[in-house]
Parts: sequence; structure tokens; C-alpha cells
Amino acid sequence: MSIYLDHASFSPLRPAARDAWLAATDVIGNASSVHGAGQDARRVLEESRETLAAALRCEPIEVVFTSGGTESVNLALKGLWWSRSAGADAVVVPDGEHHATMDTMSWLVAVERAHARHVALDGWGRIDPTRFADALPGAALATALIANNEVGTVQDAGALAGAAAEASIPLHLDAISALGHLPLDFAGWRGAGNGSGGLVALSISGHKVGAPVGTGALVVSRHAALTPLLHGGGQQRGLRSGTPDVAGAAALAVATTEAVAEQAGEHARLSALRARLIAGIRATVPAAELLGDPDNRLPGNVHLHFPGAAGESLLFLLDQAGISVSTGSACQAGVAEPSHVVLALGRDERVARSVLRITLGRTTTATDIDAVLAVLPDAYLRASGARTAARS
Amino acid sequence: MSIYLDHASFSPLRPAARDAWLAATDVIGNASSVHGAGQDARRVLEESRETLAAALRCEPIEVVFTSGGTESVNLALKGLWWSRSAGADAVVVPDGEHHATMDTMSWLVAVERAHARHVALDGWGRIDPTRFADALPGAALATALIANNEVGTVQDAGALAGAAAEASIPLHLDAISALGHLPLDFAGWRGAGNGSGGLVALSISGHKVGAPVGTGALVVSRHAALTPLLHGGGQQRGLRSGTPDVAGAAALAVATTEAVAEQAGEHARLSALRARLIAGIRATVPAAELLGDPDNRLPGNVHLHFPGAAGESLLFLLDQAGISVSTGSACQAGVAEPSHVVLALGRDERVARSVLRITLGRTTTATDIDAVLAVLPDAYLRASGARTAARS
Repeated sequence: MSIYLDHASFSPLRPAARDAWLAATDVIGNASSVHGAGQDARRVLEESRETLAAALRCEPIEVVFTSGGTESVNLALKGLWWSRSAGADAVVVPDGEHHATMDTMSWLVAVERAHARHVALDGWGRIDPTRFADALPGAALATALIANNEVGTVQDAGALAGAAAEASIPLHLDAISALGHLPLDFAGWRGAGNGSGGLVALSISGHKVGAPVGTGALVVSRHAALTPLLHGGGQQRGLRSGTPDVAGAAALAVATTEAVAEQAGEHARLSALRARLIAGIRATVPAAELLGDPDNRLPGNVHLHFPGAAGESLLFLLDQAGISVSTGSACQAGVAEPSHVVLALGRDERVARSVLRITLGRTTTATDIDAVLAVLPDAYLRASGARTAARS
Repeated sequence: MSIYLDHASFSPLRPAARDAWLAATDVIGNASSVHGAGQDARRVLEESRETLAAALRCEPIEVVFTSGGTESVNLALKGLWWSRSAGADAVVVPDGEHHATMDTMSWLVAVERAHARHVALDGWGRIDPTRFADALPGAALATALIANNEVGTVQDAGALAGAAAEASIPLHLDAISALGHLPLDFAGWRGAGNGSGGLVALSISGHKVGAPVGTGALVVSRHAALTPLLHGGGQQRGLRSGTPDVAGAAALAVATTEAVAEQAGEHARLSALRARLIAGIRATVPAAELLGDPDNRLPGNVHLHFPGAAGESLLFLLDQAGISVSTGSACQAGVAEPSHVVLALGRDERVARSVLRITLGRTTTATDIDAVLAVLPDAYLRASGARTAARS
């Protein structure tokens, strides 16, 4: 039995994305070359840019293809930082952000002498837009996850973008976990603001929506001042040098288009599967506690606290039963640290080490859910027992 | 007729690399995930790292997968800069380097207050190792192309690495145009030096050797101090965060292994085709002048000055005949600027605008060479006539 319920860290490649990738690799040429072969490659690249822009509701010229979400976030934060207004030295950053943001912030603070203005989350992981707005005046830039990648809590992206526009502070939204699960509307969130403030950048990653790993994009408003992270041939408006990955761009455009087209239907389908899973766990493991916003959360996200059980033990026992889940963000999963997101909810380290993230996606069926429900009660008994035994 | 003679900017995907990519995309999972699916992905990743390390003669732990050559060069130069010894503020950089290096240097100078210590090339594009050594003392780092991507001149990489080891200055070698065409030996060039000086980093790019665009690597000595360019999940020794592109790594490893295995044979085969092309051009277009080192050059590189003809006109006329060539580095080919490499050879702007780069590769045959020879004399007549006409 092999059941994959870790879609938040990786979603299987879509057949249409694979086909687009293969078709594009038949085009011989570097998209920056002048000759006809190069022009053929460039045509595929620019058509992919237009397709992706339509799916994200931005202009084609605003799409900067990157190597993935981590590069997109780094480009947004460092690029906006290096292009900041004179005198501004603060970065507004909510607690519980993804490690790409947290670790970039640490570097900006340590090396570039930035000051982090932290915005606390509430017990469900929500950012209060008023608190966020209060932190903005005079800042160099602000950033926020649209939906938390661990606990699934969805923020009011429009309110955050509105506050940034009001304060004329450039805002980056991390849409990596939201893409395909929530409607994204770059132009709408940016609103009438056409200056350097308000929403100016939005990150997406390919492998969360069935495009190849190593693909992604940063939407950059044409009015934004952004310093590149990669210097060189001056490709992509000079914002991201390097030979463009035409096949990756084609696959990303196809996968994103499919994911966005399916989004509303998948939201309903996954929400129903999620409700079935949560109800089943509540019935069989009454001690389990759902973390994050109970209502306004990613449709495929179930994040639970299992009192007295180490998350890693649960993960191991489910893996033995052929079920793939996570204790948190895959990026940190190799490191046995308590989840910084759970700590940001105001919970203690004991809780932060006793969590499991089960994330549903495109390929998930009711059979998968029932398989988890068949295994989890016994796994919990064993994991919580194992912990007690280890203590004695 | 479609003849591709621009292998220096892009080499067609190898069937074995495509197969490796496809096979790896069947593995469901994020290589950073703890569960069995993640372990399967990680196994493919680490096997690819071992394979690539063997091909480049380094240790597996020294391979850092990147999104391509531009990222590798940026990571090497900025990463070594940010980790430099206190007080060191100079970067040793030869003239005529690739734009990834030139533009990164401009940024380091403008924003990070680095000082560039330029090392002049001679009329054939050679770096004098003694001049290079003389520039090293007290520098933060040094960098050099192993072979020039435009004019094909091959440097004495061992001598440059030896000088850097002697001076205890960290050296980055850009092997992007050399990979598959010249023997690379990271461990040999690094020599006995195990400190932070000498050869510490070496860049390669996938799409120059038939791996997918968007793949590449930076070899980073385990003794090097290097600050990451991308912060986040801490993957790859913390030197390059971001979900590893397992399929890209597998394809890169296969393509590089093939290219390295074929290198000696291809060197002989391409050198013979190159001789045939140069002899043919000399016979039919006596005014044409070979630039770069006539002997010690990349086996597939023919770089010519056509007096009185605009390089772009020649490119256009050959393209009309179905032959893809270049006027220089593809990264700058969209911009009608005189080649900075030709200027670095001590030639004037008129010469730098009248050059053509014809680069042979894996798929090149004698038929391709003869097709160029059939078209070039008339193209030169028309291009030089067009120029004369435009002047009158």
C-alpha cells in the first residue's frame, strides 16, 4: 500500500506538464539567441509567460521565472531590500513564516543590518490586518504568507495588500502554499496603486501544483524597484539573469493553468475529504486537537496535535503502513526541531514536537482517508505509549 | 535545411538525460521529507551527486546543485565575497570574462564596495599566470574562466590554481564552457591545499552538455567559507536552500558522465572538423581572421573577424540559409553591443562588431561544415557590400 498525503511538500508531476516539458525540449536553441532556433525557443517562453500571467492575474511582463519558491522569496526580500528607500531599515514580517522567509530575514538582520518588525499571530495562526498595518509606517518592505504552509491558516491577503498600499510600503506575498488551493488575484490585490508601495511581488513554486521541481516564478509589479539576485546576461528585464528554462516555464504554465482551473472544484472536493478525515480522527482519537484556523484553512490541510506522542514516531508508524505524511515543512523535516509555527501560535515546545501534518491534493481519494483512519488510532496508542516508556 | 552550430550557447538534450529526468519524475516525494517516498527521492539525488562528483573529480559532499551556470557563478563570487577575510576588499578578475562574472563584479563594486583588480588578456585571449599571481596578494577572492566562451582560448587552469594556493587566496574557476570539451580535475587542481585558499569552487552548467536548461552545479571545497545566496530550508550543507531538483540532478549527472566519457574522442573529432572549417574559410574568404588562440582553444570553437561585415548581417544571412550561429555569448546576443571579449584582445570596436562565432558539438557532422562553407563566401560578400552600401 502506498498512500501519499504530503501534498504540501510535493505534488506529483501532472501528465500535461510532463508533455509540455518534453515538447519544449524538442525545440533546439537558447531563448536568448538571435537565430531562428533561438526565436523558436523564445516564442515558447513568451507564450508560457502569457499563460502563467493569465492564471495569476498579472501582466506577462510581470512574470519572472525562477528556479522555485525559495529563489522567488529570496529575490523578493533581498531584491526589495537592496532597492529600498533611503533611510528605511525595517522589514515587517509576521511570525510563523516559511523558512525561506525566516532564514532570509536572519541574514538581512545579521549581515545587512535590517531590523525585523515582527507581527504576532493569534492562537489560530491569523495575522491581524490592523496590527500588520500598524507595523508598516517607515518600513523598507513587508512580507506575508497568504496561507501558512504548516497549519494551513488562510490570511486576508486583500486586507494586507490594502494596508501596504495605504502606507506606501512595498509588500511581498508568499503564495506558494496557496496556489491551486485558493483564488489568486495579483491585479486585484494590487488595486489602483501603481507606485512602489502596496503589493509588488508574489511568489509561486512549481512542484506544489504538479509542475517539475526547479520551476517557479516571482510576479514583480512593473512599478517595483527590485535589485536582482542573479547578475549576468540581463535576461527577464534584468531581474533574473541566466538562460531561461523554456521547458520548465512551459510545464509550469500548463500545471498552474490546470491547477487554477480546477481550484474551485478541488476546494469543495478536498474540503469534504478533509471534513471526513477530521471527523474520523475526532471519533477514534478524541485527544487529538486540530491546530490552525478550524474554518478558514487550506482545503487539503489537516494539522493535528497528538498529546504525548512524538510527531516523528507517528510519522514513522504511518510510513511503516505505507502512508506518507509530515511533521511540518519538509524543508526542516530532516531536522528534529520543534515547529516554529506551532510556537508562534502560543503553544509550548511539547506541543510543537507532537504534531502531524496530513495534506491532501489532486490524487487524494476517500480510500486514502479511510486508510489513515484505519491506522492512526493504533499508531497514536503506540506513539504515546512509546513516549511514556521512554520517559520511565 | 536546419544546421545547428551554436553549441556554445545551447547543446541539444541527450536522450539518456531525458530518460533519467523522466525516470526520476516517477519518484513521488520531496527529497527533504522524512517518509519513505522522500527517502526514495533523496536516494536518487545522492546517487546523482556521487555520479557527478566522479565525473568532475571531486567529493560528493562538494557538489552543490544549482539552477544553472549563472546561479553557480553568482553563488561563488558573492558567497566567497560575503565570507571573505576581514580587511580584504579586492577581487581578482581577468578581462573578457562571461557576463555572469562581469555583471556580478559590477554589482559587488557598486553596492558592496569591492575593488576589482583586472588582469589583462594578451592578443590571443590568454591570461598570463604570472600577472594573475601578481594580482593575488591580499585579495578577497579570484576568479577565471577555464576557457573563454566567445573566442575559445583555453587557460592554464592548473597554473592559476597553483598561484591561488601559493597566495592562499580562494579561487573560483568557471568551467561552464570547458565541461565536456576539456578534462576537468577539481581534486588535481586543488592539489594538496586543504585550507580556504587555492581552488575552492568550480561552476558548471547543464545545457552546455546536453542536460536540461535549469540544471547546473557549483563544486565547493569542503574547506571553503561560502555564504549562501538562497536562504531557507538549509538543504545542501546549507549552501543552497530550496527543494532539490532531483530529476534535474539525475539528468545532469547522466549528461555530464556521458560528456566526460566522450571528451577525448570528441576533442579529436571536433578538432578535425574545426580544422576543415577554418581551412575552408581561409580558402574562400581570405580576408577572414581567426581570433583567439589558434592552437590552444576549445575544439568546437571557431571565432572569426570578417572585416567590413557586421556580425549581425552575417548571422542573419546564415540563419536565412538554415544555419544557426552566433555573434558572441547568447546572453548578450539580443543586445547590439560590441563584444567586450574582442575589445579585451586589444581590438577596436569596429572589429568587435564584425565577428561570428561558430561552435561545433556532439551532433555536428562534416555535412554541417560543408554547408557553412557553401554559404559563407556569398554571405560575406553581401554583408560587407551591405555595409559599404549603408555607408555611402
